Amino acid sequence: MNDLSVSTYRLVISCPDQVGIVAKVTQFIAEQGGSLMEANNHTDIDKGWFFIRCVINAQTLNCDLATFRERFASIASDYQMKWYIRDSEVKQKVVLLASHASHCLADLLHRWHSGELDCDIPCVVSNHENLRSMVEWHGIPFHYVPVDKNDKAPAFAKMEEIIQRHDADTIVLARYMQIIPPSLCDRYAGRLINIHHSFLPSFIGANPYQKAFERGVKLIGATSHYVTQDLDEGPIIEQDVVRVNHRHGKDELVRLGKDVEKSVLSRALRNHLEDRVIVLGNKTVVFD
Amino acid sequence: MNDLSVSTYRLVISCPDQVGIVAKVTQFIAEQGGSLMEANNHTDIDKGWFFIRCVINAQTLNCDLATFRERFASIASDYQMKWYIRDSEVKQKVVLLASHASHCLADLLHRWHSGELDCDIPCVVSNHENLRSMVEWHGIPFHYVPVDKNDKAPAFAKMEEIIQRHDADTIVLARYMQIIPPSLCDRYAGRLINIHHSFLPSFIGANPYQKAFERGVKLIGATSHYVTQDLDEGPIIEQDVVRVNHRHGKDELVRLGKDVEKSVLSRALRNHLEDRVIVLGNKTVVFD
Amino acid sequence: MNDLSVSTYRLVISCPDQVGIVAKVTQFIAEQGGSLMEANNHTDIDKGWFFIRCVINAQTLNCDLATFRERFASIASDYQMKWYIRDSEVKQKVVLLASHASHCLADLLHRWHSGELDCDIPCVVSNHENLRSMVEWHGIPFHYVPVDKNDKAPAFAKMEEIIQRHDADTIVLARYMQIIPPSLCDRYAGRLINIHHSFLPSFIGANPYQKAFERGVKLIGATSHYVTQDLDEGPIIEQDVVRVNHRHGKDELVRLGKDVEKSVLSRALRNHLEDRVIVLGNKTVVFD
Amino acid sequence: MNDLSVSTYRLVISCPDQVGIVAKVTQFIAEQGGSLMEANNHTDIDKGWFFIRCVINAQTLNCDLATFRERFASIASDYQMKWYIRDSEVKQKVVLLASHASHCLADLLHRWHSGELDCDIPCVVSNHENLRSMVEWHGIPFHYVPVDKNDKAPAFAKMEEIIQRHDADTIVLARYMQIIPPSLCDRYAGRLINIHHSFLPSFIGANPYQKAFERGVKLIGATSHYVTQDLDEGPIIEQDVVRVNHRHGKDELVRLGKDVEKSVLSRALRNHLEDRVIVLGNKTVVFD
Repeated sequence: MNDLSVSTYRLVISCPDQVGIVAKVTQFIAEQGGSLMEANNHTDIDKGWFFIRCVINAQTLNCDLATFRERFASIASDYQMKWYIRDSEVKQKVVLLASHASHCLADLLHRWHSGELDCDIPCVVSNHENLRSMVEWHGIPFHYVPVDKNDKAPAFAKMEEIIQRHDADTIVLARYMQIIPPSLCDRYAGRLINIHHSFLPSFIGANPYQKAFERGVKLIGATSHYVTQDLDEGPIIEQDVVRVNHRHGKDELVRLGKDVEKSVLSRALRNHLEDRVIVLGNKTVVFD
Repeated sequence: MNDLSVSTYRLVISCPDQVGIVAKVTQFIAEQGGSLMEANNHTDIDKGWFFIRCVINAQTLNCDLATFRERFASIASDYQMKWYIRDSEVKQKVVLLASHASHCLADLLHRWHSGELDCDIPCVVSNHENLRSMVEWHGIPFHYVPVDKNDKAPAFAKMEEIIQRHDADTIVLARYMQIIPPSLCDRYAGRLINIHHSFLPSFIGANPYQKAFERGVKLIGATSHYVTQDLDEGPIIEQDVVRVNHRHGKDELVRLGKDVEKSVLSRALRNHLEDRVIVLGNKTVVFD
Repeated sequence: MNDLSVSTYRLVISCPDQVGIVAKVTQFIAEQGGSLMEANNHTDIDKGWFFIRCVINAQTLNCDLATFRERFASIASDYQMKWYIRDSEVKQKVVLLASHASHCLADLLHRWHSGELDCDIPCVVSNHENLRSMVEWHGIPFHYVPVDKNDKAPAFAKMEEIIQRHDADTIVLARYMQIIPPSLCDRYAGRLINIHHSFLPSFIGANPYQKAFERGVKLIGATSHYVTQDLDEGPIIEQDVVRVNHRHGKDELVRLGKDVEKSVLSRALRNHLEDRVIVLGNKTVVFD
Repeated sequence: MNDLSVSTYRLVISCPDQVGIVAKVTQFIAEQGGSLMEANNHTDIDKGWFFIRCVINAQTLNCDLATFRERFASIASDYQMKWYIRDSEVKQKVVLLASHASHCLADLLHRWHSGELDCDIPCVVSNHENLRSMVEWHGIPFHYVPVDKNDKAPAFAKMEEIIQRHDADTIVLARYMQIIPPSLCDRYAGRLINIHHSFLPSFIGANPYQKAFERGVKLIGATSHYVTQDLDEGPIIEQDVVRVNHRHGKDELVRLGKDVEKSVLSRALRNHLEDRVIVLGNKTVVFD
């Protein structure tokens, strides 16, 4: 089923588990005339927590979104829900941050340009100039914000100003090679997506391919996760690996890794944009 | 979540899609006090068909299974549901059919013996004697039913008699190398599972590894499907592949393929036994 | 080991198998002072055929390539070798053919642009105009050659003229959706690479994703192969698959398939450009 | 090509790299009349180290193995080779160590019993009694050597005595859950194979599935490696992973992990037995 082909509302909820909660939510939707196109739920038995994602055919609903929200609020309150409902027609604004490496950025831009990635990209910010032309060919503004090694604060302040001016819903670190300041991590908690070039928790930190080469692993990987203040420790959204062998030097690992990085990042972002990812603590539920 | 660790009822339904159907089903469950441990549903938009699988914590239900069935019958009728509810405590009886090759049979027997496969195995039937000792070590009766090439009917009649005497719920062809008679296909429709040693629809019929070798494919695979009267054309439950290359002769393909066959078959059977597979026409919904 | 970082010669040979043939070839190389950086060989026992690929450090050779060729010719003749030696510094000229779909073309262009694909791309030919701007941004000439359904010959003649004018070593059909005329297939035998959007031999011909959807397969794939006059029957270079399930409609299969197509095509092309692929009959030896 | 179908000698060499070394080795083989069925080599450019594995058709050789060894010794000495040649007809003796878990042991025993694993298994040693019957059904002696938590030395002494009495060439820890004493690690360096139930270097040490569950990884894995005195740090032979998601509790990870463990261990052992693995420092070359 292709969410893009018909206008939908996506209702996403997490809350303490209770008997009858699926019935309560789905009955409410039915009472508003809503036809469910897709519904996924999960109960974390250990933590007693409940998760649900409902995709409602927007045309079948007998009320607008504001009214839906108003009516649903009392149920949400009764069940202590953390929730939101989003109109699939309203595209999220995704600001991309990049450094020198082009592969993840080029991949996301092409997916966006060919209509595969359902979002707006108001701008790209980079601490290098080399990708400007590629970004601008796509009709997207490019902001060059160099980072002074000895005083990073001004650059981050400028970057944050740009991000806020463009009213970003989500930020993607497309191999942006600077550590994000805590203020940004907190402000965009659950909306700031990184791609780390290793199969976490293996090879945390810098130079993972060099470390992988030295350890002689037979698979290398990549991990997309939400960024928190703990470097490479945030909730994992998606991971994948590729087979390597003794013939692959470090440069070959880098090359093979690029393909994993870009596919992992694009899948993570897609799931995020389709509201398929729910964070609980340091883990994610991904309804894919 | 491990279904095995707590007693559950599994309610599995397919029917024409309607607004409010998830609510109807889940509210009914809640009214009987049932706590949902897992619920998956799917709507086939093209065909207008709805599928749901609910796992209910048996201890929370305020009625027994017979009463549940009785009460649910009118809803089921209203919605033209094809449905069943099964007690996870009541193990399915699975009869295994094998020929000469041991790998799939040994794999299933070990999974069963180590408590991983949640079923009873009342007997194994084979047209060869060579696996008798292995089967009997597991404490399972072994029936030798040789098939006369020129007159297969008596053997199949005997086999069918054994299967019915053991009251089989499900039959697994663990590399049983005879074409199953139509009567058995029909009687056990949706409960007769085969493993075909190719990635269907590639290499239908005999000698798929030889054909794969001749074609020079770079991956070989295996397919587990429900058996219908059309050879190798039944609804696919599970498939997988493994990478091969020019160094692999036909014997190597056979060897590598065995590992794929047994993992595909065991996954398919597991999903079947956990009531995760629903057939519609020639396709399956698999809630895994 | 990264072939790109040092200048190498690649000697590629196939011939009837004989005792002492590896020694003969490698000793000849050693006699010219050549240091072997990589050597792969394979013996097809059934067919009695021998394959070898040697990567020689160019700086260690005490003669130039012309002299090497001259000296080696008599050995080659004695052993009935089909052989060539190529200087890794001399980039192959690869003409890309595309139609309307952008994903494979964009992927190859980005790999080339970022220095990952070791070739020149003298031009792109397409029967659609829509990808012109993307191609030209990369600084590559774009030739629009529309194909008249009722009379394709003039278009193919023009295309062939362009290909020859640009002195193409290799042609890549990056989802070019026209059947290639026999003359081109023959002229570029073993140098004309296609990507087919299915796991061959499943779903030969048109609309493979629709057929995969209808069959209900649990994996979809892509196949890169050399083009021969038999549609989708040429020697397979590379294949891969991705897992799908009942939630994926035909459009989703198309989307997921794109990622497999582009990775399979790029790996096949890379292996081809590095002289890792040797064709024998309808099969390939791939030294990867 | 199936090494098992014809009698072969496998010559395995590692040494400092030199020009002409492949020629030297292969010419020597040719001079003894040896027909090469398979030859793989690798040069570690960084370390200046050369590796080669030659499979010689034993029937073509004009001398016996003792003579071959004698004649080759001077070349080996000139090139400072670490080398051996093994007759594929002489099966290695592999002692299996197990604890309570049956899956890896059952898998290896079945592969051996069905003729897939080319070795002898003189005995199984375990610190638990529960697998005795399974082992003995295969006609293999079972030694119960319980380990006293407070004084492990006597058990290890007994185990070592059993291993030596059976003249083991290789030891496999098939989920043997005791730390191996340094003396055994050293005596069987490069011949003592472990399966660790995580994707190393992730989750070193105890309870990797619990750790994986807590971290919320999206893939879990297994690693087969040679045992050294540094726990879980020895040269990696083989690794693989399987996809998991939020629905999988820790018990499910354990169950899914078992399948990866047994396939990784059996592939590692197979490559080891076919002399495809060469250790250099803390890494392996695997000619598969």
